Amino acid sequence: MSAPLRIGIDLGGTNARAAVVDPVTGAVVAAEKRPHVERTPIAVARSVAEATRSAAAQAGLDLATLAGVGVGVAGQCDGTTGVVVNAPNLGWRDAPFGDLLAQELHVPVQVVNDLSAAAWGERAFGAARGADDAVLVFVGSGVGSGLILGGRLHQGAGGVAGEIGHVKVAPRGAQPRPCGCGEWGCLEAYAGGMNLAARVRDEVAEGKAGGVLEAAGGDASRVNASAVEAAYLAGDPYARELWAEVGELLGTAMANVVTLLNPARLVLGGGVLLGCPNLERIARAHLGDRTLRVARRGLVVERAGLGDDAGVVGAALLGDASR
Amino acid sequence: MSAPLRIGIDLGGTNARAAVVDPVTGAVVAAEKRPHVERTPIAVARSVAEATRSAAAQAGLDLATLAGVGVGVAGQCDGTTGVVVNAPNLGWRDAPFGDLLAQELHVPVQVVNDLSAAAWGERAFGAARGADDAVLVFVGSGVGSGLILGGRLHQGAGGVAGEIGHVKVAPRGAQPRPCGCGEWGCLEAYAGGMNLAARVRDEVAEGKAGGVLEAAGGDASRVNASAVEAAYLAGDPYARELWAEVGELLGTAMANVVTLLNPARLVLGGGVLLGCPNLERIARAHLGDRTLRVARRGLVVERAGLGDDAGVVGAALLGDASR
Repeated sequence: MSAPLRIGIDLGGTNARAAVVDPVTGAVVAAEKRPHVERTPIAVARSVAEATRSAAAQAGLDLATLAGVGVGVAGQCDGTTGVVVNAPNLGWRDAPFGDLLAQELHVPVQVVNDLSAAAWGERAFGAARGADDAVLVFVGSGVGSGLILGGRLHQGAGGVAGEIGHVKVAPRGAQPRPCGCGEWGCLEAYAGGMNLAARVRDEVAEGKAGGVLEAAGGDASRVNASAVEAAYLAGDPYARELWAEVGELLGTAMANVVTLLNPARLVLGGGVLLGCPNLERIARAHLGDRTLRVARRGLVVERAGLGDDAGVVGAALLGDASR
Repeated sequence: MSAPLRIGIDLGGTNARAAVVDPVTGAVVAAEKRPHVERTPIAVARSVAEATRSAAAQAGLDLATLAGVGVGVAGQCDGTTGVVVNAPNLGWRDAPFGDLLAQELHVPVQVVNDLSAAAWGERAFGAARGADDAVLVFVGSGVGSGLILGGRLHQGAGGVAGEIGHVKVAPRGAQPRPCGCGEWGCLEAYAGGMNLAARVRDEVAEGKAGGVLEAAGGDASRVNASAVEAAYLAGDPYARELWAEVGELLGTAMANVVTLLNPARLVLGGGVLLGCPNLERIARAHLGDRTLRVARRGLVVERAGLGDDAGVVGAALLGDASR
């Protein structure tokens, strides 16, 4: 007899994806994606509920049979109350999204940070499979991490653990770069795709980053991390200096997490890190060089294995209230 | 009826202390301290066993009634095997100390890092009481931490978690300072009492730190963190610049741990941090300034409450195999 199917939801800033997941194989059996038309918590809850019902119907799954569903949210969440404390991309603060969605679906809802969900998915079926101590570092438009410690998801006292994107990395004495969080000198201010693109566009305007502009086809609005990577490959000195800087900050921050937490597995994910092989190579070199020797011993560094499915798979597993 | 007494041992680089602990109140009922005469693992195990028997006899405790004893060791330990992987102050590598001591005492022995033991003691009866997520940062001759996450001691995949002293903090482009661990740019290279004293003595020899030498009574061999603090209080510019540098590195490293782990409690301990109020003040200011806002919300920062007893109390609680 196969285990009952489960449902996991990935709630991002622009759309939501509900997926029916086989908890034994990790396979996504059916999925439905919806853009947010209206962004109030109640409107999103209704739209997510529709997507969920649609995915369930595709898989022939009766929602009433579920012990619960899980939602990974791009924001800071309080897992015990289901409240989304702060989700800048959705414009939410203290939104009781778990309750709203539970009222729509008539099943218990577990709300977690999206990278916590992704880490849990990678641990069950992906690059962190079998590791009781694993860290997922994600570098995409933002920077964050998911922490699995002692076989459990570590969410912290306020549910906001894992914010590696906001550790402060600006060198002493240097002018720290501003971050989207309103603070300065955060890792995300240097390595997050959004901040990185804004910086390079500024430096294009100052006439410093012509090689990257060229790699973006001369269109400043298309300047991004991929264009920096392309310019790097073409030998552009600005791109080489930028990757040297960002790769060192990223690799050192990851090294410090490994030194502090001594995980067995470090999983790298996100479009900026996985889409820019030279940045990844430089970051890995600093990671190797700066991790305390005894913590490096036995550490395996892997690229994320489940891609976009990691979040819905992890959320589906975490959402089952009977587990 | 009172709970049975327990035994905790603190094994440092120069001596060991065995204590009989009341597990309900955290009181040290009896204790016996022994310097290491010979430093081989077997000789230390025998000497520790004698101290343990002596402390037990003082308290009228029959060792045969114990479910186990706990030992906190100043070094990296594998808790599952009882092996001390690396203890530079004892000159040990891969020493099976747990087995050796168990053979002497005829009871199960649990071996943990000394700061893990201290964190566990502070959580039970001290400054971290009642907190499921708490970090103890210790700045003495070395720098380290003990991590309690989700109500459990976090020791990591290889038992070496918590090494905040060896996170890399040297600013990009600057010459990193050497650390006793054989690496460069570690927090301990800047803030550890041993490295700090060596640096100031070097700078005294270079004629840069006259104010500190004066505070040490003109005796270079007495130059240490306390002398820097005294010179700071006297308005010495070298001491002020040194505390500004060390306090910023220390405060930023602690801020980054809080941002990553989101603990409810941060406990400050160790002779350098607690013995130098101006260094503590500067470090706390950077901690407040550089911790991600949502992680700072609800964080309580406390000075360690149990002093030298934290380690034996925590070890006693962790050592009880029946818990």
